[in-house]
Amino acid sequence: MSLLSDPARALSEYVSHASVSADSTFATGVSSAREFAVSRLKELGFAVEVVETPIHPVVLGTRGDPSWPHLVIYGHYDVQPPDPLDLWDSPAFETEIRNGRLYGRGAADNKGPQIVHMAALARVFEKHPDLPLRITYLIEGEEEIGSPSFNGFLNDHKEKLDGDMVLVSDTGSPSPEQLVITTGLRGLTALEVKVIGPKQDLHSGVHGGPLLNPLQALAEICASLHDSDGAVNVPGFYDSVQDPEDWERDELKKMPLTENQYAEFLGIDHFYPPKGFSPLESLRFAPTLEFNGMGGGYQGEGSKTVIPSEAFVKITCRLVPNQTADEITSLVKETIESRCPPQVRVEVKVTGGGDPYVVIPPGKPGADLDSPALLKKAFAAAENRIEEAFGTHPIYLREGGSIPIIGDLKRVVGLDSLLIGLFTNEDNLHAPNESFHLGIMDKAIDAFEKLFLDLADR
Amino acid sequence: MSLLSDPARALSEYVSHASVSADSTFATGVSSAREFAVSRLKELGFAVEVVETPIHPVVLGTRGDPSWPHLVIYGHYDVQPPDPLDLWDSPAFETEIRNGRLYGRGAADNKGPQIVHMAALARVFEKHPDLPLRITYLIEGEEEIGSPSFNGFLNDHKEKLDGDMVLVSDTGSPSPEQLVITTGLRGLTALEVKVIGPKQDLHSGVHGGPLLNPLQALAEICASLHDSDGAVNVPGFYDSVQDPEDWERDELKKMPLTENQYAEFLGIDHFYPPKGFSPLESLRFAPTLEFNGMGGGYQGEGSKTVIPSEAFVKITCRLVPNQTADEITSLVKETIESRCPPQVRVEVKVTGGGDPYVVIPPGKPGADLDSPALLKKAFAAAENRIEEAFGTHPIYLREGGSIPIIGDLKRVVGLDSLLIGLFTNEDNLHAPNESFHLGIMDKAIDAFEKLFLDLADR
Repeated sequence: MSLLSDPARALSEYVSHASVSADSTFATGVSSAREFAVSRLKELGFAVEVVETPIHPVVLGTRGDPSWPHLVIYGHYDVQPPDPLDLWDSPAFETEIRNGRLYGRGAADNKGPQIVHMAALARVFEKHPDLPLRITYLIEGEEEIGSPSFNGFLNDHKEKLDGDMVLVSDTGSPSPEQLVITTGLRGLTALEVKVIGPKQDLHSGVHGGPLLNPLQALAEICASLHDSDGAVNVPGFYDSVQDPEDWERDELKKMPLTENQYAEFLGIDHFYPPKGFSPLESLRFAPTLEFNGMGGGYQGEGSKTVIPSEAFVKITCRLVPNQTADEITSLVKETIESRCPPQVRVEVKVTGGGDPYVVIPPGKPGADLDSPALLKKAFAAAENRIEEAFGTHPIYLREGGSIPIIGDLKRVVGLDSLLIGLFTNEDNLHAPNESFHLGIMDKAIDAFEKLFLDLADR
Repeated sequence: MSLLSDPARALSEYVSHASVSADSTFATGVSSAREFAVSRLKELGFAVEVVETPIHPVVLGTRGDPSWPHLVIYGHYDVQPPDPLDLWDSPAFETEIRNGRLYGRGAADNKGPQIVHMAALARVFEKHPDLPLRITYLIEGEEEIGSPSFNGFLNDHKEKLDGDMVLVSDTGSPSPEQLVITTGLRGLTALEVKVIGPKQDLHSGVHGGPLLNPLQALAEICASLHDSDGAVNVPGFYDSVQDPEDWERDELKKMPLTENQYAEFLGIDHFYPPKGFSPLESLRFAPTLEFNGMGGGYQGEGSKTVIPSEAFVKITCRLVPNQTADEITSLVKETIESRCPPQVRVEVKVTGGGDPYVVIPPGKPGADLDSPALLKKAFAAAENRIEEAFGTHPIYLREGGSIPIIGDLKRVVGLDSLLIGLFTNEDNLHAPNESFHLGIMDKAIDAFEKLFLDLADR
């Protein structure tokens, strides 16, 4: 019996391969997770190629006749780092099922949704081994580090990707009862900033006073990057931002989530959205500049009276149409460099980037009438099959997160994506105690089984 | 043969006991360093008591008749944390002698200077076992964490400390040829600030926008603590600051160190002293607010798109007369709390403090005419014996560092201190590759041998 006939067991095994792409000490887990994906695709009858990249290879699976409608399915086998480890209730890479959820790093992002697609295809191919739908599977290993190799991969393999559309499940939905079809993704630009002062760490008593502490310079640079009403204070940052359509704001109001519920989920008393956006709007329609990590000096127990030689901050910006990663990266880099006081040096390293993406669903104001038949069929089928399986009509929403490669797929190979969100806020993505909801998993496998049949008119 | 007859070997053994008081994983090294100090004092003929405190015990050694002049000698057997370990050229706790320096954590701060005193006493007692000088030795184990137990210890042992003066060598000199007698020490106040936001780490894509990132709040609070000309921006911070005497500024000009040389030593292109002070003045006569460590979010390799749940900064202020630790601690704490934006919470923990100290040398404007005969004799002898051994007259200078207990000794038991600086900038205190200059060690043993004889009129 195929592993995919027991999706929870398959997911558990997939999660056990600790595939942290950002940290080279996890190299073994990255490669064994990739092997797991290869094995599943082979089980499903795909021809599989492992395509080398400068960092982590892409798994490329193909099936079907060139004359058939051509669906590209995207996923990623890499995961976020698991730390802080002491906040996990069960080990990050040894799954545990509690209250209908499977816990483990990567369970929701993105291994669970991949198992959903594969398990649905397993059922479809059991009855229709010759289903007239060409499918190309792309499972990459660098999504969590900003997919630095994916553009190059796309350019090298354009001819294999002459498809009609992409199917992705790497976005969120508000609850297990209410799925979202994601119509937009924020772009991303990632920078690492290092402020360098004296040539070595100094005693803050013996040498404190005559020199600028790199931590002080770093704090002052970082503090300058937002203004007092929370907006990003980088000249030109908002110049290309396009307001969302009215129907998008209306669709957002259908979300079964109040501001109070969201505040309670986050554990905060007060929101802090930039001017002009409600809290729920801000994370879907507004760009951000966020500090993801900051450090310097003594980090241990107790105190150490030191002036550190250097300090760093890791920054990411989330971008919205029509900002581009190139444009914002340059603006932020130049702004930080220009705000570095002369007493220290600053080094800004660009560590990743991807453009925002928007697709207008067929039938909505502004939709592309010339989009491929398969895409139109897919949006209609998704609405119907999700409603059947989950009992509610999906909502069309832009998402706060980024999948830079979705924009790349549009730009390089011309494909739009159908993004069906299978994780929820409670899944704790990128945080301790990540989990995947097994109820969503079961219903989604039912929905995708029928969706795949619809796409092949079976 | 006593270990003290080979001072470099004695120092090497002392350093090998890894006595990091700030980090409980070094408990064994702390206790074996203490035992080393006890053994040396016993070898010298002291009656030794190990006095328990809430953290690390004080070594209390006594010798001599109550009718004799009474000298108190202070030192500390604990050391700073050794990290970052990868920047050491030889292991921090396995000493190595290179170019006339003995390398290891604590070699200069404060184990080397202690060996100097002890080796000089060993020579003195060999010829004069009954030297009519009462000596009380205090070697504590919490200096590097701000001596939290020392005040309590002083209060409990006042009667044993009815001395005439304190001798300390835990301060710096500009070069191996030019010693300094330190006439002032900056005070210290230490705080740890934690900024707390959402109840757990969040994905910066899925949740970025509607909430205030604790790292942003921390950066904004920290950036607010200095104004644009480098002065500390805490209301009232400078109210009690007393300008140094003119002779103190003049004495500083005798330092064989130019601003350019100092900048080169630090590895910086531009100084950043607060207004009204030259770079060299600022570290002796001006107070500071310094960030010693800052952290939050992802610290590892690569990137992680997270909004951290909390962020911290470790702050110390160096204080000058007539600031007090209590006053400045309250001002800084209140200022930070008042600048915390309502979207996050702040917790400020006071982790240490000590008042600044100044002694005017006998003969200088403002000196106390009623100071004990032993103190007057000691200052005169120090000038002569240092000049004999080093070939140059010592300079009187205030020091940038803090030894809070020097102020405590004045306040609680009424004793002034003679502070003879035996380490130099090149010794890398509190930094990787700390070392002690063996040439200073040899000359200083000669000088102190004669100084001790002078104090007993022998």
